Amino acid sequence: MLIFEPRDPNFETRVRASFARLSLMKTIGASLTRVSPGEVEIELRLRQNLTQQHGFLAAGIVTAILDTACGYAALSLMPAGPEVLTVEYKVNFVSPARGPRLIARGRVTKPGRTLTVCAGDVFALSNGSEKLVATMLATMITAEQR
Amino acid sequence: MLIFEPRDPNFETRVRASFARLSLMKTIGASLTRVSPGEVEIELRLRQNLTQQHGFLAAGIVTAILDTACGYAALSLMPAGPEVLTVEYKVNFVSPARGPRLIARGRVTKPGRTLTVCAGDVFALSNGSEKLVATMLATMITAEQR
Amino acid sequence: MLIFEPRDPNFETRVRASFARLSLMKTIGASLTRVSPGEVEIELRLRQNLTQQHGFLAAGIVTAILDTACGYAALSLMPAGPEVLTVEYKVNFVSPARGPRLIARGRVTKPGRTLTVCAGDVFALSNGSEKLVATMLATMITAEQR
Amino acid sequence: MLIFEPRDPNFETRVRASFARLSLMKTIGASLTRVSPGEVEIELRLRQNLTQQHGFLAAGIVTAILDTACGYAALSLMPAGPEVLTVEYKVNFVSPARGPRLIARGRVTKPGRTLTVCAGDVFALSNGSEKLVATMLATMITAEQR
Repeated sequence: MLIFEPRDPNFETRVRASFARLSLMKTIGASLTRVSPGEVEIELRLRQNLTQQHGFLAAGIVTAILDTACGYAALSLMPAGPEVLTVEYKVNFVSPARGPRLIARGRVTKPGRTLTVCAGDVFALSNGSEKLVATMLATMITAEQR
Repeated sequence: MLIFEPRDPNFETRVRASFARLSLMKTIGASLTRVSPGEVEIELRLRQNLTQQHGFLAAGIVTAILDTACGYAALSLMPAGPEVLTVEYKVNFVSPARGPRLIARGRVTKPGRTLTVCAGDVFALSNGSEKLVATMLATMITAEQR
Repeated sequence: MLIFEPRDPNFETRVRASFARLSLMKTIGASLTRVSPGEVEIELRLRQNLTQQHGFLAAGIVTAILDTACGYAALSLMPAGPEVLTVEYKVNFVSPARGPRLIARGRVTKPGRTLTVCAGDVFALSNGSEKLVATMLATMITAEQR
Repeated sequence: MLIFEPRDPNFETRVRASFARLSLMKTIGASLTRVSPGEVEIELRLRQNLTQQHGFLAAGIVTAILDTACGYAALSLMPAGPEVLTVEYKVNFVSPARGPRLIARGRVTKPGRTLTVCAGDVFALSNGSEKLVATMLATMITAEQR
């Protein structure tokens, strides 16, 4: 695991304020459970209205929490001011996204002034054990706030 | 555009029945607007509770309709019986996912017995014109139904 | 197919001059067979020293000609001065990269000042017919020349 | 790092025999420096005839050694008999592929009977320090040998 020094000591406040403005995260009931420099964790309880045909969390929602965790991992290392947008991501789905709880962990692989590369994983939590559900490799871009 | 011959004449009924079982698609209000052999279209009206911080459709939901369109494009070419699961996808986001309407088009690039490669695009529709929002390249796998 | 207007009328000369500086392309014997605004074609004759275990062109070389075609498709739409670097790409391999000739076609999906999204395909040519070998989705970045 | 138990005690012999049949690896002068269960390392000395316009290792060759390391990481966990083919990969390029030595490390993220997901990194080695050059996320498939 890489150790990063945040450029803005208030990174956590900034990340939490931005997360609070994401309507989708509120709609699905996701919560920001950890914000460290270059690493962010989001947790979600499976709800029936977010599932696919087998009762597992739909791929798009697995992706949404993973993308959000990766984006904020990137933002946590940036100076105050700009925001982070997703350029692209790739996700592999390796096992069913079972409930009751899922956790997404995003981390910075390579920070940069313009582009930041992130990686992340989603795990299904059950009886204290974690099982890998999906893994992401993503490119984020720094953008001036609108 | 490739022309495909469906192996099951009832492909549309099959795809529509499967789509009806996707809770997330119901939750977000997506509808299946076209099912052709190897090509499927899904439409969505932007709702405020699905947005990110700028009021655009969140990337995860853009991805969800794109993935669903690609998955059913693959399923439309398959014989009755098996289902399709997403192995992985990559999405590039190229412009804001503005409302009021978004349309996802998925198509088969290369059908296969085990793996099918699909591509898809999401467009924002406004005043009769279409603007590219995101583009996907995906791998689907044929699986026996549970 | 999108129609693009080049910003530099000398785009072809510029692309050809840059291609001539790529040692790897010379080493593998690739040639630039077409340079249009936003679309570039590269051809390669299969050589035994570029193969994998079955005598097909190795995936890395399939990727190399595809990446080069996509990068120059992006460069063809740019003003004189900056160059193009590859941020990332994803490639799906769909059938064996058989000889005797392979052709890579890269095209711009979405041009941009900083980032350009491209797509490309490699085909195996044999007896006048083309068979899809691989398909790419890539992100390119504009960079000041060193 | 995950710990894997090989299903075939002769995995290293099998991987080395297969690597020896890859003409491209011979052509570029790559060598297999480590074969562990689920993790493989390949090393390459930069040669001028494999470079792009700035004298760095071309992206396609960076990808070739990364793909080979990932593919053999997958093969190392399989029983004797079948081989591994690349379904698709995504690579992010994060810093110049400088010489004199580059090292690719591929590892299994999720083994499977049909599909195996792998991740890998290429590092530039210079004066005893390693710098990340590129990172890959890949899908491999088990195939009966021809």
